[in-house]
Amino acid sequence: MHRLRTNSSTAEDLLIELDRDRSRAEPLHRQVAASIRESVRAGRLRHGASLPPSRTLAAGLGVSRGVVVEAYQQLVAEGYLTSRAGGYTQVALEPGTGPGPAPRTRAREAPPAVDFGYGHTDVSTFPRAAWLRSVRTVFAATPNERFAYLDGRGVPELHQALADYLNRVRGTSADPKDMVVCSGFGQGVSLLIQVLAARGARRLAVEDPSPDDDARPLAAAAGLDVVGIPVGPDGIRVGELEKADADAVVLTPSHQWPTGGVLSAAARARVIRWAQRRGALVIEDDYDAEYRYDRAPVGAIQGLAPDRVVYCGTASKTLVPGLRLGWMLVPPHLVDDVAQAKLLADRGSAVIDQLTFADFLGRGEFDRHLRRMRPVYRRRRDALLAALDTHLPELTPTGIAAGQHVVAWLPPDLDEAAVVAAAARRGVALRGVARYRLDPAGPGGLIFGYATLSERAIARGIAALARAVADVRAA
Amino acid sequence: MHRLRTNSSTAEDLLIELDRDRSRAEPLHRQVAASIRESVRAGRLRHGASLPPSRTLAAGLGVSRGVVVEAYQQLVAEGYLTSRAGGYTQVALEPGTGPGPAPRTRAREAPPAVDFGYGHTDVSTFPRAAWLRSVRTVFAATPNERFAYLDGRGVPELHQALADYLNRVRGTSADPKDMVVCSGFGQGVSLLIQVLAARGARRLAVEDPSPDDDARPLAAAAGLDVVGIPVGPDGIRVGELEKADADAVVLTPSHQWPTGGVLSAAARARVIRWAQRRGALVIEDDYDAEYRYDRAPVGAIQGLAPDRVVYCGTASKTLVPGLRLGWMLVPPHLVDDVAQAKLLADRGSAVIDQLTFADFLGRGEFDRHLRRMRPVYRRRRDALLAALDTHLPELTPTGIAAGQHVVAWLPPDLDEAAVVAAAARRGVALRGVARYRLDPAGPGGLIFGYATLSERAIARGIAALARAVADVRAA
Repeated sequence: MHRLRTNSSTAEDLLIELDRDRSRAEPLHRQVAASIRESVRAGRLRHGASLPPSRTLAAGLGVSRGVVVEAYQQLVAEGYLTSRAGGYTQVALEPGTGPGPAPRTRAREAPPAVDFGYGHTDVSTFPRAAWLRSVRTVFAATPNERFAYLDGRGVPELHQALADYLNRVRGTSADPKDMVVCSGFGQGVSLLIQVLAARGARRLAVEDPSPDDDARPLAAAAGLDVVGIPVGPDGIRVGELEKADADAVVLTPSHQWPTGGVLSAAARARVIRWAQRRGALVIEDDYDAEYRYDRAPVGAIQGLAPDRVVYCGTASKTLVPGLRLGWMLVPPHLVDDVAQAKLLADRGSAVIDQLTFADFLGRGEFDRHLRRMRPVYRRRRDALLAALDTHLPELTPTGIAAGQHVVAWLPPDLDEAAVVAAAARRGVALRGVARYRLDPAGPGGLIFGYATLSERAIARGIAALARAVADVRAA
Repeated sequence: MHRLRTNSSTAEDLLIELDRDRSRAEPLHRQVAASIRESVRAGRLRHGASLPPSRTLAAGLGVSRGVVVEAYQQLVAEGYLTSRAGGYTQVALEPGTGPGPAPRTRAREAPPAVDFGYGHTDVSTFPRAAWLRSVRTVFAATPNERFAYLDGRGVPELHQALADYLNRVRGTSADPKDMVVCSGFGQGVSLLIQVLAARGARRLAVEDPSPDDDARPLAAAAGLDVVGIPVGPDGIRVGELEKADADAVVLTPSHQWPTGGVLSAAARARVIRWAQRRGALVIEDDYDAEYRYDRAPVGAIQGLAPDRVVYCGTASKTLVPGLRLGWMLVPPHLVDDVAQAKLLADRGSAVIDQLTFADFLGRGEFDRHLRRMRPVYRRRRDALLAALDTHLPELTPTGIAAGQHVVAWLPPDLDEAAVVAAAARRGVALRGVARYRLDPAGPGGLIFGYATLSERAIARGIAALARAVADVRAA
């Protein structure tokens, strides 16, 4: 008995043992069927996998096609395989009790009745048809050589389309050649921190409070000290930054995350002066500036000092996170290093996605999407504020009319953790500000993400939260 | 004179200065036109950028729509804007001499007549129609919530489709839950090195010669020592590995890059024993195993020891690099750390691309593509070997009948660098083996990538190379 693999086709990949001693009782088609059956049982061929065409497998095994057809038919009859309309054959059976991998089981907790968690972009509004139109255009129009390896910056079409957009909408001073396409703010700041660390930076300043899942762990992993700069109603306290001996600072000047303030004009100028004096870098996380509801958004601070500020934008909040598209405007003296870090990290972002986004921007679809979403988010925000005013007037909402979340401060006698826990028991998921603080001192506050919630769900959630607050007071 | 921005539309992003003092001579439409003209001239609005619909801009500015229509018409007449069929208006003019970014100029050198550089996948064969069909299926079938943020492993559909494929084709022991989707071998090895360094690894062994642009610089950047293990005709010399005091080794067991050997069965078993004894990790770079022309490819060594081997695969060689899709089978004790590193690095690979590839695999399109490409690459390889035999019989091709490149050793009296330089003068681009060696000793050799070259171009290139060799001998 020998083991045979076929050549030049998928069939080579099926381990099929054939005993060609014709004196043996077992016909060839049964031997083929037994091998395939065993592969399915062992989980080597799994549910939905395609088998090679009978002709191909037969040629590979050196048997007549009828042998393979008969084997397939037998296994279809036995329920191992399914014969599909296109003429191909698939594995039908779920793997049995053999040594193959166990079927994936995913335990799901019952979801909360209302989830105010931040970071849930309203993915239901993703303009699929428009995006797909751009994909089609890209496939029809893109020369072959564009699908090859890239440099680390991304494709020029997207650089140009983004520069047009950012200069128009965000008041940046964007030169396409200083742009690096990345897969979102998380990767962008990761690359920047790598470059800063390699250039001898020792200390990164961040806003306090600020997100706990990107710049802070990345800087720590790169061996940088992380120092929190307290945030007031108008953004960070620049006096504290000036004393912090930092080499770079991560800021959300248009809409501080989470507290919702805008960095004042005076503070902006002072941050830039600080950066120029020290040769420090400002990393501007412009995560949701497109969503301002009361007036035009304040321009990006990158426009004030393109040599000292890295502007970081992302499609995760404005379109959907699953695209994994972000962009950076990098000061000219750093752009080669950042592009090199991107190249080393992942050899560049996917070409098709970049070209698609460029086409999508160029057609004005991104503008159209933002125009469509602004009133939707604004109504949700208004519903949230109205419900808080009705049910929980003792909370103090803060921040500008913008974005996809609101922070509301708790009165001093309400413990943040107790309210969050009581809310969970009432079916309301939300987070407090405390987990995002570097310095644990500071007032209690709740973060309300509203991007995915209907106005009705928002009202229901806040009413339930009010009952949770009553629970806490009664305890 | 005041500055006005409009609300809730793209128009807000146009800085338009209107003087509403009607006693002034300048009509409103001229003021609007002047503002837009200035934006175009200054490069704030660039070639191809879309303008807001006239109705939107008019509403935002609080002027009649006719004012905006007249302004647009004026600028179309002047050549600044173009009126497009869909009813929208775009910037037509290339930016002038204002302070905007300069037009992108890209100096291109004349390409070599024949380029044997490695890494040029034949992107012209990318099955666009089949891929686009899968994109369409994904857009039609994917629930909204799938476009949200991900965990670091990737989407389960792709885990399952790849496990099916790899277990069938590469003899791996793949459990979908131990799979991490990444953007190619470069990112995969970057994540692995981060995890190893965080766990205290100090030394990474690599094959000598081996690629100089992924594991080696990444390990050095992470503070690991890099040690080269010499490669013979049957892959690395395991005795040297055993003496190297390494915590991990990067191997290309199916087709050593660049020398083209296969790691022998005895050496595989010995590498696995070494890893088990030391608790070391084997990183298997299975970059082109699907392209073997003489027999079925040798199975992945991951199948021998799933607890000690990380299997790394990529679509860059088999489909196109521009997709940025790779995958790893990670030992269960490391998979959480690797997924966490992926999450921190870029929050996961793009969802649409992953789902598309899963659909593409499930339809059997990947198998079909490989079946179609194998004879194409095989013919190119045969043409290369025939041309070498005819024109340069003194060179010694080495390695198995596989992949997208061949190494040929030079006779001792021919200097590798001299031949490479002489070839360039004859219009033939290629690289020597020397740049990939850690230990500079070793025979001279040339690397011939043939993936993108027609058989005719290959023959022409080798004939020109023969003339270059004659130049060297004559010098």
